[in-house]
Amino acid sequence: MGDREDFMSRVNDLYRFEAIQGHLGWDQETIMPSKGAKSRGEILAWLAGQRHSRLIEPELGHLISRLENTEMDDFLAANVREMRRKFDEAVKLPNQFVSEFTKARSEALIAWQKARSDADFSQFESHLENMVALTQKKVEYLGTDNTPYDVLLDEYEVGMTVADYDPLFAGLKQRLVPLLAKIMKSDVIIPSLPEEMNFPVAAQEEFCNQVSKAMGFDFQAGRMDVSTHPFCAGLWPDDTRFTTRFDEKDPFSCLYAVMHESGHGLYEQGLPRDHSYSPVGMAVSLGVHESQSRFWENQIGRTSAFWDIAMPWFREQFPECPDWDSETLDLVANEVKPDFIRVEADEITYNLHIMIRYEIEKMIFNEGLAVKDIPATWNKMMKDWFGIDVPNDSLGCLQDIHWSMGAFGYFPTYTLGNLYAAQLLHTMSKELGNIEEIISSGDWSSMLTWLRTRIHENGSVMTPSKLIESATGNAPSPEAFLNYVESKYSKLYNL
Amino acid sequence: MGDREDFMSRVNDLYRFEAIQGHLGWDQETIMPSKGAKSRGEILAWLAGQRHSRLIEPELGHLISRLENTEMDDFLAANVREMRRKFDEAVKLPNQFVSEFTKARSEALIAWQKARSDADFSQFESHLENMVALTQKKVEYLGTDNTPYDVLLDEYEVGMTVADYDPLFAGLKQRLVPLLAKIMKSDVIIPSLPEEMNFPVAAQEEFCNQVSKAMGFDFQAGRMDVSTHPFCAGLWPDDTRFTTRFDEKDPFSCLYAVMHESGHGLYEQGLPRDHSYSPVGMAVSLGVHESQSRFWENQIGRTSAFWDIAMPWFREQFPECPDWDSETLDLVANEVKPDFIRVEADEITYNLHIMIRYEIEKMIFNEGLAVKDIPATWNKMMKDWFGIDVPNDSLGCLQDIHWSMGAFGYFPTYTLGNLYAAQLLHTMSKELGNIEEIISSGDWSSMLTWLRTRIHENGSVMTPSKLIESATGNAPSPEAFLNYVESKYSKLYNL
Repeated sequence: MGDREDFMSRVNDLYRFEAIQGHLGWDQETIMPSKGAKSRGEILAWLAGQRHSRLIEPELGHLISRLENTEMDDFLAANVREMRRKFDEAVKLPNQFVSEFTKARSEALIAWQKARSDADFSQFESHLENMVALTQKKVEYLGTDNTPYDVLLDEYEVGMTVADYDPLFAGLKQRLVPLLAKIMKSDVIIPSLPEEMNFPVAAQEEFCNQVSKAMGFDFQAGRMDVSTHPFCAGLWPDDTRFTTRFDEKDPFSCLYAVMHESGHGLYEQGLPRDHSYSPVGMAVSLGVHESQSRFWENQIGRTSAFWDIAMPWFREQFPECPDWDSETLDLVANEVKPDFIRVEADEITYNLHIMIRYEIEKMIFNEGLAVKDIPATWNKMMKDWFGIDVPNDSLGCLQDIHWSMGAFGYFPTYTLGNLYAAQLLHTMSKELGNIEEIISSGDWSSMLTWLRTRIHENGSVMTPSKLIESATGNAPSPEAFLNYVESKYSKLYNL
Repeated sequence: MGDREDFMSRVNDLYRFEAIQGHLGWDQETIMPSKGAKSRGEILAWLAGQRHSRLIEPELGHLISRLENTEMDDFLAANVREMRRKFDEAVKLPNQFVSEFTKARSEALIAWQKARSDADFSQFESHLENMVALTQKKVEYLGTDNTPYDVLLDEYEVGMTVADYDPLFAGLKQRLVPLLAKIMKSDVIIPSLPEEMNFPVAAQEEFCNQVSKAMGFDFQAGRMDVSTHPFCAGLWPDDTRFTTRFDEKDPFSCLYAVMHESGHGLYEQGLPRDHSYSPVGMAVSLGVHESQSRFWENQIGRTSAFWDIAMPWFREQFPECPDWDSETLDLVANEVKPDFIRVEADEITYNLHIMIRYEIEKMIFNEGLAVKDIPATWNKMMKDWFGIDVPNDSLGCLQDIHWSMGAFGYFPTYTLGNLYAAQLLHTMSKELGNIEEIISSGDWSSMLTWLRTRIHENGSVMTPSKLIESATGNAPSPEAFLNYVESKYSKLYNL
């Protein structure tokens, strides 16, 4: 067997283990009986161990080194590049450290759940200190010429550093804060759902299925299920599964979760199948993944053009709903309101939520902010930027799961998703023509085809920012997003 | 690491791979989207390869040999015994042969599906010849001092040979054939379901859930789903899943499938969890597994005592059903009728169906019956034993999937299940008292506890026949079963 074949066979094995982990994780979140949790945890840990011991095999390192010195096509080169990253990281981290981290994380997760439910930061404080300390140790093991926080940012969106994010966030803040102030002063009144109405689960499911199919999600190569927190799992070639949740008082919560997760699902269904079970055949980054979900959820789904098409479907399922026009539904779906919870935020305040987390993470890892000072820092920023007083830490710095899992540096990818989506929409409209007209036509296949070619089919052959540049002609930037929200919300709120 | 630890760690790894295969197989049969079939087939083949390469590692063989010469407790001894079997078999079969067999089997399976649907044996003949030839080759590789068919029988029920089955089946036939003749002459009329009635799926599900819970199946440690052919998969500690199917014209089909599969499920839920992921922690054999399903399905479920308890549950779900008494339902559930299809057969004719398959398999492997002569042989036996003319091979020798999969020697375990179940019932009634009274009381926990202690908790520490002997005081024999059916059907049919 030649080096390339040997390398690819090892890589494929690693990614097959990962796919199995993904499948058992999906099952755990959706349909596993409750008592199965213990044995599921054990088998997932065992799979992680199987995968890790293969990843650190010295022969894999030798193969990578030898291939790095040969001529390679773009796909093999991308695989070698990504495996170099993974191999180096796995080899640099001592086994004992990885176990310690894993153990601390499960303890922190349990403490966080309790602390959030009791709105009591003190229960979580020592665990968070531990996660921060272990993460700092991890940064030391990995080593860097940049700042410590850069190491963490790079884990979630390759190539992005503080030097990239700082100007990007500054640019966003400069125009989002005044826009928000203007919206707050608008006298446009947002209608609300009639309180006495009930939206049965079966009918919501039917409606959301219809929307997801219209987007192009292939239900012969995927499924929709129910879980506490909606998510999408690529799982297997031609088997992509996403989830949603149902609230009988609010059909929009499920609808936009489905559009969001279907957007992720379309990306997974469009990945290059010739390269399954290898890095280059996977989605390139969290930021690009989020751009696909946000594109469909916000830029398609939260428009009056969408409701022109979807209102008859909606009324078919809920014949007793008020006789709203699509402009009204557009307003309902786009209400802007500075509030405490990120996952419920509108398009304007969402990125401000992210920035607060980014600034605090930067302070922790680059400027030595003490964990005990996080709540006060958080609350001050909410007051300064949103003008609201955080009543307790459950509505403040305890709301997100990420830190309890040691996922520092993850949040900014959400904002990247929003920016990328706006850049894609802008270029798409230049090439395909008026997007509102396409949405109103009900045939959305041209948009999906465009995303397939520009994004999905490229897998991870380019870095995230190169991919966005190749798809849109511009490097990642906040410009398109700001133009999009300023124009959209000026119309909605008569600014 | 000592030999025992090294051995057990390797064994646990093998069985973890097997559990993953089981999980992905369950998913494939129940909820996998259709286009996922190709990648699912690939990953299952990959897992089989991963497992096989670990099984044939020479160091495992050395460990087994060394342990065989040490003092071991019963559980470790059982594990070593079973791994010796598996290791020897895996090592004796050349890789190329295993691939050839696997390939021939998938082709035969496809040909069989088509042949059955077209009722055309000629489409399947050459494939079946191939499967027989490969199976004969397999017997040669494995080697034996007994007859070739004995090698195959032993694969599915360790320790059982032609010398065991022949007298057992002869004893059965001797009393079942006259019993059947008497029943056929009885003037008892079996009522049938009102044709115009519909039994909605949701109500059937509710009813069957209630029955399964009454049996003691723990739905916090298991699930019920839907598949074309009902089955039960042990999967994981505290995560056992069975399936059923729904026919809106016939609620009994689903009910008895659920009781059957819940019986399998109770066995899985009762296995010794300290020994998970090793042979001794698994169900001991197909025959014993089938005894658990048949016990609940037939000996509990097809009685008027069962209907005393279940009729109110049934009527709650189907308020418009006729006002039958439990004796009537007992008759409906126990109708005896010589017919073509095994899986739809009653308790009397079922074992005759099995015997036809056993005799033909014995003729093929021990007496050189040519594949082309199978249909005529089959049809003659159906005429001789059942008095019916097989109109086409779909209702004859093409009805079962087993031969297309090369599973020769499997069928007799179904009959063993029936015999074991009757032996268990007989001993249970001596120890717990009148079983009809226990069933009528609605509290079935004493029966489950008895099965737990006598069967489930023993895992595979004994051979199947030793387990039955230890549970009932008697070696496997047809006596208890014959007494059971003679007494039951004499009453039902006024013989």
